[in-house]
Amino acid sequence: MSDTTLTHSALIRRVSQIFQRAGLSESQADAVARTIAAGERDACKSHGIYRIDGCLRTMKAGMVTLDAVPDLMPADGAIVRARANGGFANAAFELGAPELAARAKELGMAALVINDCTHFAALWPEIETLTAQGLAAMAMCPSYSSVAPSGGSEALMGTNPFAFGWPRQDSDPYVFDFATSVAARGEIELHRRAGTPLPEGWAVDAQGNPTTDAEAALDGAMLPFGGHKGSAIATMIELLAGIMIGDLTSREALDRLGNFTLLPGHGELILAFDPARFAAGRDGDPMARAETLFGAIIGQGARLPSQRRFAARKVALADGITLSGEEMAHLDRLAEHGLDAVD
Amino acid sequence: MSDTTLTHSALIRRVSQIFQRAGLSESQADAVARTIAAGERDACKSHGIYRIDGCLRTMKAGMVTLDAVPDLMPADGAIVRARANGGFANAAFELGAPELAARAKELGMAALVINDCTHFAALWPEIETLTAQGLAAMAMCPSYSSVAPSGGSEALMGTNPFAFGWPRQDSDPYVFDFATSVAARGEIELHRRAGTPLPEGWAVDAQGNPTTDAEAALDGAMLPFGGHKGSAIATMIELLAGIMIGDLTSREALDRLGNFTLLPGHGELILAFDPARFAAGRDGDPMARAETLFGAIIGQGARLPSQRRFAARKVALADGITLSGEEMAHLDRLAEHGLDAVD
Repeated sequence: MSDTTLTHSALIRRVSQIFQRAGLSESQADAVARTIAAGERDACKSHGIYRIDGCLRTMKAGMVTLDAVPDLMPADGAIVRARANGGFANAAFELGAPELAARAKELGMAALVINDCTHFAALWPEIETLTAQGLAAMAMCPSYSSVAPSGGSEALMGTNPFAFGWPRQDSDPYVFDFATSVAARGEIELHRRAGTPLPEGWAVDAQGNPTTDAEAALDGAMLPFGGHKGSAIATMIELLAGIMIGDLTSREALDRLGNFTLLPGHGELILAFDPARFAAGRDGDPMARAETLFGAIIGQGARLPSQRRFAARKVALADGITLSGEEMAHLDRLAEHGLDAVD
Repeated sequence: MSDTTLTHSALIRRVSQIFQRAGLSESQADAVARTIAAGERDACKSHGIYRIDGCLRTMKAGMVTLDAVPDLMPADGAIVRARANGGFANAAFELGAPELAARAKELGMAALVINDCTHFAALWPEIETLTAQGLAAMAMCPSYSSVAPSGGSEALMGTNPFAFGWPRQDSDPYVFDFATSVAARGEIELHRRAGTPLPEGWAVDAQGNPTTDAEAALDGAMLPFGGHKGSAIATMIELLAGIMIGDLTSREALDRLGNFTLLPGHGELILAFDPARFAAGRDGDPMARAETLFGAIIGQGARLPSQRRFAARKVALADGITLSGEEMAHLDRLAEHGLDAVD
């Protein structure tokens, strides 16, 4: 089967159609499709069309409210709250982001709380929406229990991603977005299939002993990155982006789902900062000073995060997004059979 | 020489006297002494009386304004700004903390910016001031260039501490506070003196090659914890708590000082969040839910951070703080000779 090249907007439409035919409302489907197409555009395949099946499975299991309409609560100080009302996080974020940006510019900083959503995406789409408006941003959310605290033996925290961005005037923003686990669950699954040992420090078995056996690791728990420091950050995310915002912790999200094959439902916390407000009255332009810092990183041969994504994006926006024959056939199958295409 | 046991408040007075005799204003001296005595009280010797010499050296070098009076800028939205005006950070934090707490309770969250300070302490004193008022808090600051970015070869970032706290009603707060470098510079110095090799992954030499030689590491750069993830967090701290708040980056702080024997001058960023406001209208009490999370950590044999400090504090507040004869003699010498006691 030969490759097919689509424009970014054509891919958005195609993915949205799949979701709409599976019963998701148009506004939800469009928001989810924009996020999935952004993953493909950036050659971030782990968050691209690969995610569609998981979304459909979660819809089929009745864990997503298909016609959910997110709503924005009246602003409360620096807190903006968008309720996803059982839908995917994406439409709720799109609804809340303008208000978050407005409050951050008014007060210097603000928080967007997303509640009651199904979350399947990376956090960089949220971050980049804010950096595009000249704001710095931090985002975090729980996941479902798969990571043991440092010194522990049982899965408790999720892979709890942490993301940050800083706006740049003449180039792509500074953006990082990583799991606070040392590896992703999918990477361990790949080792299991290949029959290769895991690197040391990735996981413990069901008894809490360090293991390099992928099978034993999947029965046990992953470990946080960076030992007790990463474990502390993962715990902070449970507290701030689960408990503080009145939404599920990773353990509660797993209890609700009962397994790892569906996408977890929980909340998300996004903080936005206005550098112009924070730097007001002080010497130096924060945008120019940040460029000096970035120059010192690049100048010594280190890389800024997300550069591979931005390079892929440039190509995709100019030349289109190329999918393999297998991928196109899979999209066709999903469009034709909807929820019947997945288990 | 025999040990001496002092009450916590007697130690504060004694340390404050040393600073006042060395020319520091009473209010500055008291604030610095409270922080140093808190380190001894918590058996956190690396931030206890050991720090006095470095403070005095920095004063002697003319890098501290001895009669600085911090001032609070008019509140600007969610941003509270305390200018240390060339003094130590401590008095500025004490001035700004009540306003930070008030704004966080009014708006749900707020930021305290400290500018133009000399910083020598851990961040947990700031964090615990806020958790004592029922707030969650995050704090960070640059340091001076001693850490290479992941993939790089030259010192650029500082050891850039990151701290977080969550209030607990019937026990000590959940608090972590760590350097974003894999080790502290002092730990490398200890290996150099002992002639022992460094663990792998701690440092690079002046050419940017991995090294386990402590001497070569001190001429080169330390590495961030957790590889590229820790490096990204250290970079975020340069951006938010250096550049965004209009204060020095770690490289600028080192350029200003010219060496590692003095304490760096820069700013600090503290964020405070009101869990009651964030959780309002949602199911569950965030304080009770956090206890469930902590119980699940402790229940599997893992530890909460800072427990050793809290245990030491309990003993110190009941039985006093014991200093060795050598330590007491050193305090006497500092009190007698003031700035002449240090190089």
